[in-house]
Amino acid sequence: MQRLPGVGPKSAQRLALHILKRPEAEVEALAQALIEAKKQIGLCSVCFHLSAEPVCEICRNANRDNNIICVVADPRDVIALEKTREYKGKYHVLGGVISPIDGIGPEQLTILPLQRRVNQQKPQEVILAISPSVEGETTTLYIGQLLKPFTKVTRIAFGLPVGGDLEYADEVTLARALEGRRELD
Amino acid sequence: MQRLPGVGPKSAQRLALHILKRPEAEVEALAQALIEAKKQIGLCSVCFHLSAEPVCEICRNANRDNNIICVVADPRDVIALEKTREYKGKYHVLGGVISPIDGIGPEQLTILPLQRRVNQQKPQEVILAISPSVEGETTTLYIGQLLKPFTKVTRIAFGLPVGGDLEYADEVTLARALEGRRELD
Repeated sequence: MQRLPGVGPKSAQRLALHILKRPEAEVEALAQALIEAKKQIGLCSVCFHLSAEPVCEICRNANRDNNIICVVADPRDVIALEKTREYKGKYHVLGGVISPIDGIGPEQLTILPLQRRVNQQKPQEVILAISPSVEGETTTLYIGQLLKPFTKVTRIAFGLPVGGDLEYADEVTLARALEGRRELD
Repeated sequence: MQRLPGVGPKSAQRLALHILKRPEAEVEALAQALIEAKKQIGLCSVCFHLSAEPVCEICRNANRDNNIICVVADPRDVIALEKTREYKGKYHVLGGVISPIDGIGPEQLTILPLQRRVNQQKPQEVILAISPSVEGETTTLYIGQLLKPFTKVTRIAFGLPVGGDLEYADEVTLARALEGRRELD
């Protein structure tokens, strides 16, 4: 239990004792559900998001704009962006970011399939929505260079979070908010 | 003591007892320093930032760009922006944001002096760096409408804070980060 993310020794003990207290049928149902989920959920063959089908729901949805592909590092980012209910295009999940220290180069990510997809699908725009860590920046710049000859490449805005106070923002965020200023319309 | 910001009953008691324990000369020095500070520190007659002189150090600094004025709500915001060491223009401190509920209209702020300053100084750009609350947005739009006929008006970027993770950003911030995306250069 301790190997689960966010579960320390105490939580692990509490979880274990809770399971021992439940009826056997219930525990078996949970175990079965875990096995089923692991068996059924794979990656979408188009965008590499988690999916129970060969092609995921978002890729199959004809109402979504094929002309925009939003590139993210992780399936969790797709879920976060879907919650905004603002984005109506498609996604592409890289499966991580370029990180030489961890032995993750472009080949370990789904960058080649992304390139192929852009060449075939010819989207009008590719949005890079990758968190602004050092590795994230590297990944953004790498993919940007790769795709710019073929399509318009944009990146999400960095700056003050909404509801955030200028006074409490860190200096780097403030500097980027200034740098990224835009004309009022 | 309890009337000071961030000081509750317990902290107030601790502060009071601490002062009673110190030598009389030390307490007098503190009291004198408070009175002196209050007497000497006023507002800059140009930008309304805190200043011991009639015109503040930033306004007097000839190395700073007179062609850009960054408009903020509060002197604290000037201090925050100065910490970035990125901004080399001048400031204008509004003294608050438009908030009809609190009885603060444009007349209660230094918006008229800002208008006059823009007309005389003719800056190339006015940057609105106001926190994105409802009142802040109102203030930004109000000043934007007012100054747009006379100069270029920009606003700082809103989006993902640097070092922030996509997954942990709230929906409104993510939506604005998407909306504010820009082409990779």
